[in-house]
Amino acid sequence: MSSIILKDITIDGICKDVLIRAGLIEKIEPSGSSVLWDIAGDVEIMDCSGKVAIPGFVNMHVHAAMSLMRGLGEDMVFNDWITKIWDVEKNIDSEYVYWATKVACIEMIRTGTTTFNDHYWHFDASVRAAREMGLRIATGYEIMDKGSVAEAERQKLQCQEKTAKYFASPSEMHLYQLAFHAIYSVSEEMMIWAAEFARKHKINLHIHLSETRKEVEDCKAAHGGLSPVEYLDRLGILSDNIIAAHTLWLSPNDVRLLGERGVNCVHNVNSNTKLASGYRFLYKELKDAGANVCLGTDGCASSNNLDMLEVMKTSALFQKAWRDDPSALPLPELMDMATLNGAKALGIQGGRLVEGAVADINIVDTDNTFFLSNSPFLANLVYSAHSDCIDSVICAGRFVMRNRQIPEEKEILTQAKRVLAKIA
Amino acid sequence: MSSIILKDITIDGICKDVLIRAGLIEKIEPSGSSVLWDIAGDVEIMDCSGKVAIPGFVNMHVHAAMSLMRGLGEDMVFNDWITKIWDVEKNIDSEYVYWATKVACIEMIRTGTTTFNDHYWHFDASVRAAREMGLRIATGYEIMDKGSVAEAERQKLQCQEKTAKYFASPSEMHLYQLAFHAIYSVSEEMMIWAAEFARKHKINLHIHLSETRKEVEDCKAAHGGLSPVEYLDRLGILSDNIIAAHTLWLSPNDVRLLGERGVNCVHNVNSNTKLASGYRFLYKELKDAGANVCLGTDGCASSNNLDMLEVMKTSALFQKAWRDDPSALPLPELMDMATLNGAKALGIQGGRLVEGAVADINIVDTDNTFFLSNSPFLANLVYSAHSDCIDSVICAGRFVMRNRQIPEEKEILTQAKRVLAKIA
Repeated sequence: MSSIILKDITIDGICKDVLIRAGLIEKIEPSGSSVLWDIAGDVEIMDCSGKVAIPGFVNMHVHAAMSLMRGLGEDMVFNDWITKIWDVEKNIDSEYVYWATKVACIEMIRTGTTTFNDHYWHFDASVRAAREMGLRIATGYEIMDKGSVAEAERQKLQCQEKTAKYFASPSEMHLYQLAFHAIYSVSEEMMIWAAEFARKHKINLHIHLSETRKEVEDCKAAHGGLSPVEYLDRLGILSDNIIAAHTLWLSPNDVRLLGERGVNCVHNVNSNTKLASGYRFLYKELKDAGANVCLGTDGCASSNNLDMLEVMKTSALFQKAWRDDPSALPLPELMDMATLNGAKALGIQGGRLVEGAVADINIVDTDNTFFLSNSPFLANLVYSAHSDCIDSVICAGRFVMRNRQIPEEKEILTQAKRVLAKIA
Repeated sequence: MSSIILKDITIDGICKDVLIRAGLIEKIEPSGSSVLWDIAGDVEIMDCSGKVAIPGFVNMHVHAAMSLMRGLGEDMVFNDWITKIWDVEKNIDSEYVYWATKVACIEMIRTGTTTFNDHYWHFDASVRAAREMGLRIATGYEIMDKGSVAEAERQKLQCQEKTAKYFASPSEMHLYQLAFHAIYSVSEEMMIWAAEFARKHKINLHIHLSETRKEVEDCKAAHGGLSPVEYLDRLGILSDNIIAAHTLWLSPNDVRLLGERGVNCVHNVNSNTKLASGYRFLYKELKDAGANVCLGTDGCASSNNLDMLEVMKTSALFQKAWRDDPSALPLPELMDMATLNGAKALGIQGGRLVEGAVADINIVDTDNTFFLSNSPFLANLVYSAHSDCIDSVICAGRFVMRNRQIPEEKEILTQAKRVLAKIA
């Protein structure tokens, strides 16, 4: 792997030279320093004057392979929508997941995401797609027994086998974890098994939690008045290795529990609002209670794209609006939710542009109308600009996009059309 | 002006050939028809296979020259924010407005807006900028006396003079109208004068109305319990020549009045939510009552960009969310709000791609991840894609952008930086 020098790139308002080697940010020094660096081997030098570096985004909840299911269930309520999706998903196979995940990777790269926390069937195919595209993926075996004992036993065996295979050849580009769908689609016994399995192997467990009012009401009716959060806590599942997507319908006690257990809560505002699941996400309350709050896009069947910059803006608008407070969700916190907090949850030394961190970097072109005014860079980035201001993307020290060009993009779109035609 | 033939372009799902001549859409015929057309004079033929035509957007409420004031007052409440803006505006001049409006035109063209309904000082400079950029502008004399009788008299004279000048050489690219700021910044006598003046000259009157809860409360306190809408109606001002921006804090009686008088109401969701002015816009109620509901971005100091496609998505998400109804604000209505309804309000034969309409057309490139799935085009356009899918833009029969290139863009950015440095 060759080294990269980013010359004259702006970081936190100051012009710097950056050395990237062996997947890491090795040096960040004042602009001009790089002429004195004596680097062995191949070095690519990129002139970045007028450009700004920000950390690559960490999309903390996505079903990447749903990139080909956009618009399948427009304007439907959650329960009708998920029934329709599950019906379509019966026909998909590993090849579909591979190409659909590649399509998702194109979209994530073009919008500045370098790590994604995925949740889908045929995860081997997703991992292969992500690795070929050069992105970091967190994913692993997906559990959903829908109450069938036979299915639960089959999944346990398969889970052990797949996990062992991963531990035999681990990769820093694939953060292995376990996933189960939700409390309403997985049996109690299986949830407990999965949580113990994840703890034993020191891996994360990625779930959907308290997404809709109905989920909470059904849970209370079934479990003696316990909310989904309380129910999982009673089962001993809530912990800092839990990545809980949505956490939208929460009581004060739920917030307290999620905070005390150090749960990673993922806000998916576009999905929640488009499906009319809700919008009063308790960002400040969760943060104050001690939860690690991150951002995600959710899958394209609900949200309907993978653009983290769009999610950041929508999150801020909704927080300001429903709280009747224009200062709600300040920009630096929003940036952390989209980068640092996700990296923390996944155990990546990233989310900040500092020496020693992983070299996951977006290079932003500011030579356009959005960045003209003398305003804070983050304000212009989040509120004015679009993700097409992201000119180039580096993940783990390699360019995955240069000047908006991604290798093999056309070929991937062609293959995706082919698998879509096959499934139709 | 040369003619344009768009060959093999998709309109409403069907592949067509389109002839554009003398600023109008002259023919729309089945794909392949154009080989038989015998057109005199210069003809530019554009191969549009795989591309989709939609009407150019009509941005119904904008302060274009605020394009250089982005981020000036982040995270501030409305009344502090507008005080800060007015303070900055003391220093601007006609040259500033000219270049700032050109910057806004670049941004509007890149995001598919072909007509904008502007509201700003030094409107002559804005008109000059828009005409040079090839966009349609609706604007005219701006009234804001802040209760000063001397200022009111000065403005009346100037208004008469400017209006006479316009009528001496009218242009279909400049839809002349009158503007006054709001009921809290213009004297009652001046509002009545402006409304009579607009009626006499058969022109529109563009105002801010019921934007904040405070505006409504202050009005009720000052005018015997009347809301801003009721107050304007009592003054005889409410009519179908009124373009009322915001109309956010409305009673059922306000909705009834706005509907019965056929007022054009402009929803500015990004501005309203970012400033935390409110989000429960009564779209359905206003439409059902008979009002003509349109969309706008507002100026960049509040919203913070001029992207109508983004506004469409945000509007839909907020309507679905606060109404707890995923079917709220269906896509075809959303498209009308961004195109046809604005054209109606301004008296333009546009907002639809039909023979005889003005040739204001966005050419959308669908060769990307967003349009891969077999979903309704509008769903992919609004919920998945970004405005950078707009490849080329035609306004009044001329290309204002071809393949994402706008003539003189770099020079305009340079000049804008110069006037920004001058004002700093």
